[in-house]
Amino acid sequence: MAAPEFSQEQLDEIYAFAVDLGRKAGQLLLESVEKRLDGGSQTIEEKDSAVDIVTQTDEDVEAFIKSSIHDRYPAHKFLGEESYAKGQSREYLIDEQPTWCIDPLDGTVNFTHIFPMFCVSIGFIVKHRPVIGVIYAPFQDQLFSSCVNRGAWLNEKRRLPLIHKPSIPPMPPTAPGKCILSCEWGKDRRDIPDGNMYRKIESFLNLAAETGSRGGKGGMVHGVRSLGSATLDLAYTAMGSFDIWWEGGCWEWDVAAGIAILLEAGGLVTTANPPENPETDPIEEYKLGSRLYLGISRPAGPSETETGRQSQERTVREVWKRVRQLDFSRPGA
Amino acid sequence: MAAPEFSQEQLDEIYAFAVDLGRKAGQLLLESVEKRLDGGSQTIEEKDSAVDIVTQTDEDVEAFIKSSIHDRYPAHKFLGEESYAKGQSREYLIDEQPTWCIDPLDGTVNFTHIFPMFCVSIGFIVKHRPVIGVIYAPFQDQLFSSCVNRGAWLNEKRRLPLIHKPSIPPMPPTAPGKCILSCEWGKDRRDIPDGNMYRKIESFLNLAAETGSRGGKGGMVHGVRSLGSATLDLAYTAMGSFDIWWEGGCWEWDVAAGIAILLEAGGLVTTANPPENPETDPIEEYKLGSRLYLGISRPAGPSETETGRQSQERTVREVWKRVRQLDFSRPGA
Repeated sequence: MAAPEFSQEQLDEIYAFAVDLGRKAGQLLLESVEKRLDGGSQTIEEKDSAVDIVTQTDEDVEAFIKSSIHDRYPAHKFLGEESYAKGQSREYLIDEQPTWCIDPLDGTVNFTHIFPMFCVSIGFIVKHRPVIGVIYAPFQDQLFSSCVNRGAWLNEKRRLPLIHKPSIPPMPPTAPGKCILSCEWGKDRRDIPDGNMYRKIESFLNLAAETGSRGGKGGMVHGVRSLGSATLDLAYTAMGSFDIWWEGGCWEWDVAAGIAILLEAGGLVTTANPPENPETDPIEEYKLGSRLYLGISRPAGPSETETGRQSQERTVREVWKRVRQLDFSRPGA
Repeated sequence: MAAPEFSQEQLDEIYAFAVDLGRKAGQLLLESVEKRLDGGSQTIEEKDSAVDIVTQTDEDVEAFIKSSIHDRYPAHKFLGEESYAKGQSREYLIDEQPTWCIDPLDGTVNFTHIFPMFCVSIGFIVKHRPVIGVIYAPFQDQLFSSCVNRGAWLNEKRRLPLIHKPSIPPMPPTAPGKCILSCEWGKDRRDIPDGNMYRKIESFLNLAAETGSRGGKGGMVHGVRSLGSATLDLAYTAMGSFDIWWEGGCWEWDVAAGIAILLEAGGLVTTANPPENPETDPIEEYKLGSRLYLGISRPAGPSETETGRQSQERTVREVWKRVRQLDFSRPGA
């Protein structure tokens, strides 16, 4: 079956539906928090490890989103974190067909601790490209959203990135120096020599250490931020709060909506893993199932010497020079 | 001059003043952001390093707070980050007398990037003890506040920690396992063997690695969070969002209000640096000018085997066993 084409009008309608759905699902998350604050309990069940917990709320909210989408768009496919976890296949399940890719609750650990950085994430994908994204963090009442050709928005009011041309500061000439790095420690904490945990930390250290130190790799980023939600890391990168998001290990439902929003905000998304020659090898487009991502914020410039895109690509290469390859795989991607 | 004693009634009045002042100062921060969003510019001047920037807003807001306090309580002393930076002395300036200790803008780098984790911090100190604390994050509209004997609050409505007895989960028996660790990379990025940056990272790694790894030091914390604001790290520890806050290098204006709030929420605050024998040495009270802090959230329990305080003290010792001593000093403290 050939994948259908969508007119802008159809996409606009789907976008309005997604925004409404995001708000409603976020409201369910908030109600669950409030019930807990008022003395209720919650069911927490351990999944793969102590770090990866799932609550009844995840499942309830996913069921709500799934049935809402099925009622409105019965022909569209659906991939949700909880459905995937309970399904038979571990393969990459997104094909050319229109597919909703959602995480009912990203930042589950934050949610159980009532740290406000949790959200619902709703992405709509056509031909492997996320074209609509909605991320709603209900405790903060922050809604990030985008539709192709319509821009990316905070609370449907402020355009992302928040600071616009001409006052948008260009990507610093010293990048990653003076940039904000968004990164996560993740769940793979195995104490294996040269394993993912150590490769991540070595990469964070290179980016953070004073300029030129560590054999020239010291990047002296302005700040290192870890929120415990890849989805919100991406949303804040789209907002311009973070300049660089470097991540390995998360899944397509963690990032589908965020990538849609970051791209529509003018960002660049490629792979976390540096190619053989970071200086000259082509900057490939991201792969949604790759579990390895590097996102660069805001298209600054043009300056006298480079376009905004060139400044982003320069930053990609400077990051690649300082990070290690990570080892995360994904069946079928 | 003997330090005056304050009645609860006097403290309640000062608390109401501080809450009002915090909201007004936060409003000024928000107006500055909105002016920038509407196309204005800002003056950013480099202080000690590229990581430590000061904006005109810091100075304006500090001047507003200082004059408001002086008008209302002319006999009280005042210590603010910006006044300190411009003053002659680098000594520890707080004595027995009633002193306001404030940071007009904590999370300056977040502020310049419009990442919502910035705030104003107002602490009132009597005989070296912070007795009133107000932290206001205006972009999120989150006000954390406390007055001795009156509890700690979110938006003057929800008591902190957010989840109460009996449903408050006890400090996990495996702590630091299953805890959320709040920590910051900080400004000292010098590539010195065994310097502060490496000691911090080694400590983070010990706390994060799988249980029992790294020569028994692996602590398998549930999550590692870095917000770029020591003040908000403390506020969220008081809220119960974070379980453990381990920090070296911040100053008394960064933490005075937060310590007041955390203590009033039932938390424990001591030093970041482990004593010679972490298992048995006494758990000393924090020193406000020490630049070295370890904060533990919520007094859980009692369980069948220990009081809430004992579970906090157990957690302190388990953290101490896994962290390195840091080298931050403070003239005169």
